[in-house]
Amino acid sequence: MTGKELVAAFAQRLEGRDWAGLAELLHPDVVYEIPQTRERIRGRDRYVTFNAEFPGDWHLEPRVVLGDERNGSLLFRWSLADESSLAVAFFEFDRGVITKVTDFWPEPCEPPPGREHLVERW
Amino acid sequence: MTGKELVAAFAQRLEGRDWAGLAELLHPDVVYEIPQTRERIRGRDRYVTFNAEFPGDWHLEPRVVLGDERNGSLLFRWSLADESSLAVAFFEFDRGVITKVTDFWPEPCEPPPGREHLVERW
Repeated sequence: MTGKELVAAFAQRLEGRDWAGLAELLHPDVVYEIPQTRERIRGRDRYVTFNAEFPGDWHLEPRVVLGDERNGSLLFRWSLADESSLAVAFFEFDRGVITKVTDFWPEPCEPPPGREHLVERW
Repeated sequence: MTGKELVAAFAQRLEGRDWAGLAELLHPDVVYEIPQTRERIRGRDRYVTFNAEFPGDWHLEPRVVLGDERNGSLLFRWSLADESSLAVAFFEFDRGVITKVTDFWPEPCEPPPGREHLVERW
């Protein structure tokens, strides 16, 4: 698989709860990181378990899938019950499998003052 | 320029305060959005002004640059005085210029309980 195909398959197998299929895309020593919480999970088994144990009937819908030989990225809409937000993952690859996943979960916030003359809100 | 080159040039010209050079990469009707604050800026002139007016001696250092014909992404380290964090931008292209920029500024937060058996903190 190309990098782009790896990212697309990752999203599809996660959404489909295809844990065996997800594991096939991952290096045994894959590292998962969430910089916002400073959390790290080491290893394919723990990372698949983390996803399988994640509570709730969550769904992810890919919006942008990108990848080259070394890196990939995924912009997706994440939904869980009444909540829905955009989230981002970056990937590192080595010889056709994913060696690192870095997740970002940007939270809603208020803008700083001083740019109202340029900006509209929605 | 390819999509990947557009993203790399965007980061370089922003960091270099090369406002004329940045404008060359942008469609006149470029749209800039920050989903977290629900802010939108329409048009190249306002978007360049927004960046030129952004206060402080900020710096951005690209970590990952990706792009194809239609979409691009940038993972970068953003620094301003003592603060430093990872941030993300996604891009849309049309005929060699940037038509949309979507920024994400993920803030530090605490993890939910229940995954301590899988996770280490740093």
